[in-house]
Amino acid sequence: MDEERTAAWWGRRAWELLSAVRARAPLVHCVTNLVSMDVAANALLAAGASPAMVHSLREVPEFTPRCDAVCVNVGTLSEGWLPSMRAAASAGRPWVLDPVAAGASEFRMEACLSLLALRPAVVRGNASEILALASRSLAAAASSSSSSSSSSSTFKGADSTHDSGDALQDAKALARSTGAVIAVSGAVDYVTDGERVVGVSNGVAMMQKITATGCAATALIAAFLAVVEEPSDVMAVAACALAVFGLAGEIGMESGAKGPASLRMHLIDALYCLDEQTVTSRVKISLHS
Amino acid sequence: MDEERTAAWWGRRAWELLSAVRARAPLVHCVTNLVSMDVAANALLAAGASPAMVHSLREVPEFTPRCDAVCVNVGTLSEGWLPSMRAAASAGRPWVLDPVAAGASEFRMEACLSLLALRPAVVRGNASEILALASRSLAAAASSSSSSSSSSSTFKGADSTHDSGDALQDAKALARSTGAVIAVSGAVDYVTDGERVVGVSNGVAMMQKITATGCAATALIAAFLAVVEEPSDVMAVAACALAVFGLAGEIGMESGAKGPASLRMHLIDALYCLDEQTVTSRVKISLHS
Amino acid sequence: MDEERTAAWWGRRAWELLSAVRARAPLVHCVTNLVSMDVAANALLAAGASPAMVHSLREVPEFTPRCDAVCVNVGTLSEGWLPSMRAAASAGRPWVLDPVAAGASEFRMEACLSLLALRPAVVRGNASEILALASRSLAAAASSSSSSSSSSSTFKGADSTHDSGDALQDAKALARSTGAVIAVSGAVDYVTDGERVVGVSNGVAMMQKITATGCAATALIAAFLAVVEEPSDVMAVAACALAVFGLAGEIGMESGAKGPASLRMHLIDALYCLDEQTVTSRVKISLHS
Repeated sequence: MDEERTAAWWGRRAWELLSAVRARAPLVHCVTNLVSMDVAANALLAAGASPAMVHSLREVPEFTPRCDAVCVNVGTLSEGWLPSMRAAASAGRPWVLDPVAAGASEFRMEACLSLLALRPAVVRGNASEILALASRSLAAAASSSSSSSSSSSTFKGADSTHDSGDALQDAKALARSTGAVIAVSGAVDYVTDGERVVGVSNGVAMMQKITATGCAATALIAAFLAVVEEPSDVMAVAACALAVFGLAGEIGMESGAKGPASLRMHLIDALYCLDEQTVTSRVKISLHS
Repeated sequence: MDEERTAAWWGRRAWELLSAVRARAPLVHCVTNLVSMDVAANALLAAGASPAMVHSLREVPEFTPRCDAVCVNVGTLSEGWLPSMRAAASAGRPWVLDPVAAGASEFRMEACLSLLALRPAVVRGNASEILALASRSLAAAASSSSSSSSSSSTFKGADSTHDSGDALQDAKALARSTGAVIAVSGAVDYVTDGERVVGVSNGVAMMQKITATGCAATALIAAFLAVVEEPSDVMAVAACALAVFGLAGEIGMESGAKGPASLRMHLIDALYCLDEQTVTSRVKISLHS
Repeated sequence: MDEERTAAWWGRRAWELLSAVRARAPLVHCVTNLVSMDVAANALLAAGASPAMVHSLREVPEFTPRCDAVCVNVGTLSEGWLPSMRAAASAGRPWVLDPVAAGASEFRMEACLSLLALRPAVVRGNASEILALASRSLAAAASSSSSSSSSSSTFKGADSTHDSGDALQDAKALARSTGAVIAVSGAVDYVTDGERVVGVSNGVAMMQKITATGCAATALIAAFLAVVEEPSDVMAVAACALAVFGLAGEIGMESGAKGPASLRMHLIDALYCLDEQTVTSRVKISLHS
């Protein structure tokens, strides 16, 4: 991480990216889960992007190459949708993987590993998801043996039972072995390319009580990636997207949220209304030492 | 358009139709996309209708004939759902087609054309969708040749890259060739039977930043169609439904919406609360010259 | 019903159960309909549970046994999902059935009957659904003959055309024949084990104008069942879940709801915020005489 990446640099960079999304309205193709479709589409629209929820294999090969970025989310995975996910991931567009509940089943883990092999630019998950994925991915790399124990003893569906910091070393190793930037969501979001780590401190705890906020954050990373001509600093792009999303949650909370449903509403409104002064002064990204 | 169709006439007609929906609670069968299910169902309930989201081919032939109207929406089209869409459209009930992102793929365009052949009472789309559909439908009618270029050079997924006025001539031609009333949504919604055109000026721009508002508007057209004994003036029914939906958006905006998520909430609330005075005085429909 | 089950007893029991859900965050596996996924997941999260929407048959046999309870909802039934519903119901966890629109088709009725044979702990539906189900289930038990008339003459999709009281005798008979607790939603919710009946008077009428509130209530019953070690008093658990959900609706209404969309938001917020004083003093459950 270069020395000049001060807090002010990050604030300006986040604003540049959000402004570019608003100006260009990138078409973001989501092959996402059934729970998150509404909130992910609304978050993308509020940020200025144009969402496209398409999942038929009859359409993906023709449609996806015309999109600006892709978001693949395995939340409600099925055999029918997996080929479409793989096709969308293979369409030559920058893409982001959300390995929801990666440890929920062997089928899901195998699906995530097969998607990981298609070289996502970014993988975003919570600590439990990244730990499960790293555990299997790195074991496979080390031994070529096929372990069937995909589950963590503290498995909890789509919710994490770990802090993001717990997954940091595994995230770095996973980033090195896959070439993807790995983002681990939590009280602090950690984003790493395998060498450097940045921490994103925006967000409020109640966001975890809204379904599919993680999915929406992943979709926003795809929207931010879509407006970068040279994807040379994917880590910064992912960190900025998470910071902007978390900041929208903070402002949503300050707007009078009384629980998770009003927070969801205020968060989407805030994402739509974010201005330069707010973004540049309140984005909290820093080099993790 | 008869001379007596003054602004006051339209206001009264819109109120009559909305009142009839509230009084009869028509059962509206939707074979709709996965993104819009929640907001379309809630909009139908708020307007007084009874939504039924059913998509299995095992149920449609038995279920749909007992419904009052049908809404078919291809937003998240798949091979598995297309036969159900065709069966629902063929069940002998008045039905409305929403050709979401018609130009997104050849598969989608062919599906839309095959549905169009099943004689919807109304087709509602944005300008890009109607232009794409008209281009292919009219080309096929003219030459019986099969063109494979379904895409517009300015293609943008489900969002329009054209103004509604741009599609007006194509909408009229499409209405004449298919026998359907064509509704083109935009800053002004145009509704045509191929000869006459009415413009609906209700609505606010921010509605485009809420996912599936178009889908909800299409569902509302189906609900309004369901309460008309003699569907002799389908164009007026469609125009009234769009005006009522747009008016709910205006009142939602005036109710303190601060962004697209609060607008969505206030819009649904407003649809539920609309009273005679508001509808008769604020519906803005006029003959387009 | 024991004599000591005063209003105060019910209030304390409801609070104990809600507190246990918040403390243990049970993993509730939902195989539910496409319309209700968002609101059901958000209601479960607001109540303190951890929702898991999983429907692939490749995952259910491995995943469901690790969950704390299961909710099966046939709202958007399809042939593809039915085997997963049956597998989830057979996984050995306490489970709840929501027979949405049971009378909509013969396919749906047969599916509901086949699920009923897998011994749900609780079945929750509106009066029309319970009447349709009881009519067929009891006829089959009486005659072993297969009637193909699954439909009620007053059939109305997912909305009820009957009052909950109309279904009370059928609900009791259905409970006796199946061994399940039957909950009939309405202005008063009735919950019966076939012998005893309790009435739950919490809730507001406008909740019927929000899609999938019934589905969310069913999911909440599953969450409450998940924290009971000895499921010896399932009827009380179901009644408490319905009372808590209805109470959240009452408080949502009092929080300034102006229509169904703001009520939905305030209801979820209220579910998140419910405190001991409110629950113990306002739960309205009583023995039905």
